[in-house]
Amino acid sequence: MSTEAQSAIRAAAAIQPDLEGDYVIDDVVALESGEVLVRPTQRYAMYGRLNAARDNAVFVAHALSGNAEVATWWPQLFRGAEPLLDLDRDCVIGINIFGSCYGSTGPGSVDPETGRLYGPTFPLINVRDMVRAQEKLITALGIRKLKLAIGASIGGMQVLEWAVLFPDRVTRAVSIGAAPLGAMGLGLNHLQRQAIMLDPKWAGGYYSPDDEPHGGLAIARAGVISYKSVPLFEQRFGRKPNRTGENPWISTAAGQNGRFDVAGFLDYQGHKFNDRFDANAYISITRAMDTFDPVRAHASPLAAYSRIQAHVTMVGISTDWLFPPEDVRSMAVVMAAAGARCDYREMASNHGHDAFLAEPEHLVRLLTPVFE
Amino acid sequence: MSTEAQSAIRAAAAIQPDLEGDYVIDDVVALESGEVLVRPTQRYAMYGRLNAARDNAVFVAHALSGNAEVATWWPQLFRGAEPLLDLDRDCVIGINIFGSCYGSTGPGSVDPETGRLYGPTFPLINVRDMVRAQEKLITALGIRKLKLAIGASIGGMQVLEWAVLFPDRVTRAVSIGAAPLGAMGLGLNHLQRQAIMLDPKWAGGYYSPDDEPHGGLAIARAGVISYKSVPLFEQRFGRKPNRTGENPWISTAAGQNGRFDVAGFLDYQGHKFNDRFDANAYISITRAMDTFDPVRAHASPLAAYSRIQAHVTMVGISTDWLFPPEDVRSMAVVMAAAGARCDYREMASNHGHDAFLAEPEHLVRLLTPVFE
Repeated sequence: MSTEAQSAIRAAAAIQPDLEGDYVIDDVVALESGEVLVRPTQRYAMYGRLNAARDNAVFVAHALSGNAEVATWWPQLFRGAEPLLDLDRDCVIGINIFGSCYGSTGPGSVDPETGRLYGPTFPLINVRDMVRAQEKLITALGIRKLKLAIGASIGGMQVLEWAVLFPDRVTRAVSIGAAPLGAMGLGLNHLQRQAIMLDPKWAGGYYSPDDEPHGGLAIARAGVISYKSVPLFEQRFGRKPNRTGENPWISTAAGQNGRFDVAGFLDYQGHKFNDRFDANAYISITRAMDTFDPVRAHASPLAAYSRIQAHVTMVGISTDWLFPPEDVRSMAVVMAAAGARCDYREMASNHGHDAFLAEPEHLVRLLTPVFE
Repeated sequence: MSTEAQSAIRAAAAIQPDLEGDYVIDDVVALESGEVLVRPTQRYAMYGRLNAARDNAVFVAHALSGNAEVATWWPQLFRGAEPLLDLDRDCVIGINIFGSCYGSTGPGSVDPETGRLYGPTFPLINVRDMVRAQEKLITALGIRKLKLAIGASIGGMQVLEWAVLFPDRVTRAVSIGAAPLGAMGLGLNHLQRQAIMLDPKWAGGYYSPDDEPHGGLAIARAGVISYKSVPLFEQRFGRKPNRTGENPWISTAAGQNGRFDVAGFLDYQGHKFNDRFDANAYISITRAMDTFDPVRAHASPLAAYSRIQAHVTMVGISTDWLFPPEDVRSMAVVMAAAGARCDYREMASNHGHDAFLAEPEHLVRLLTPVFE
């Protein structure tokens, strides 16, 4: 079969990884928080193959609720007339982050020191810890230098840490909708964690896998409202009553009145999230987001960014309330001042922070010149 | 003592009401929701005295957590070289709204039909219900026409309903930071109520007065984050660690790490709120906010607003995320198109929706020409 025909088949079907695995760091890994992880695991997925020169590797860093299987949650990067990622050319690697519940070591893993689940005792993980461990895995895969590291949200944070921590290991870095969280974002993440811990099923974090704090996690997830934008919500929901036929203007049974459409949407999103995520993992990863700061512990921002050798593309999203585009652009300005090759592009979208998932074709169009 | 000396003393001390009382509507009051309130009470406070012509009455409508004692939560309206409200000239009336926990009938009142506390069975109250009841009280106080009705947030909603429902009873109406809530605001109010109901002490709304759902109400109150603005939070908290000395970058005891300053602030605000508010009241009043729409059940917006005889001043707050200034201005435009005398003023502030409480002197300066 011709390469073209293979590509066509691949584009039509759901793309499956060519390789999946668990990589164990056979050591005690010191964390930024002062604690350690003993023999931690990273789940990874690889699409396509490394070429002989081993210079076609692309690392796609996932966001909060993502996983190593990049093509399942960002399939549009592989599609279209000029795909951003072309598996006839590129070898694409996804790595599940520490703290998650998709295969890498997280709160749902067994603590080798106690033989019991970590649960709420899982140590505070920093984006820097994730990236240091990713570098070991990338090395173990035989990759000397990433052709590209790309990610959005906490994925974009990982990309920036890669560029600063391992300057000679990344050729191009694309960070989308990522900057150190401001006070409003820190506050919202805190409230989401508080909601989880308020759930009577929380049990101090030692909840049973059969009886999880779904109410709290649903409310936390509904905090995703801040990932969207006012104009989008206005257009999509406005003041319409819930589409199931509830009436917000009348009283119903005790305690819960008819909902507006937006409330029905948030409840639905929250409950759906319970099927695919875990409360302790949500807490762990939002804390990693909170503590992200690529210049922390460097002598100065300029000192940190002057380490960068990659060509960095910073993408801000016009309606991103959580990571305002001016924050992203400010980082780009400081990087450029530090001598890094850095360009800033703005994605005009009314989807808020979520635009990278909601309008990926738009993102691909914005980025494609990166590779020319 | 001279009038000047009396004024000076009054300005220096906390202003006390000259009259406080409970007004009972001795009837079955039909509500917009289709339910009824039987013999409901309104707590009111009066400052200064009605003049002989009874044309010096000012109604100050309170916001979510306010009460009838206007001078305790909006004292700046009575102060300064040219005070907005002058008790040598004006008679100022505050009325606690239905659903609240400050004296008027609300979820903490006894349902005369069952002899038990309403709790979660308290009927859905609409801003229109509040205003219809206020009109009866104002009439009972011997007032034919209000010189001024003024309020912000749900207070501004009451003012607009007054102007539409009782056109010949209001000379001037000032509504600040009020419009029908958009999808984002409806969603946030919903999440706050969900947080309250998640609290194990919620008990379906039948919680004991000695064991209230303080955790849930604290989270709901912290939703007040949306009443503030990103620039204000950035300036006030940024990414600073909590001022009590916690360290967000290290792990601490299970389940709760060191907080950033903004998280400490939100927790503090939430806990403080528990001392002065009630969970069922919070639910009742946020529902009234949700359902506010002064044109609902009128033939059209133009038909509703063409009823207005008062001179209406609509104030938008530049950084108000919950009631964006463009929404407030749009209402003013439609009112003017309907033939109402309506002007729009914008309060430039980085305090978000809360600016009316945070920078009242600024508001007074913006409004003072109203009375010239």
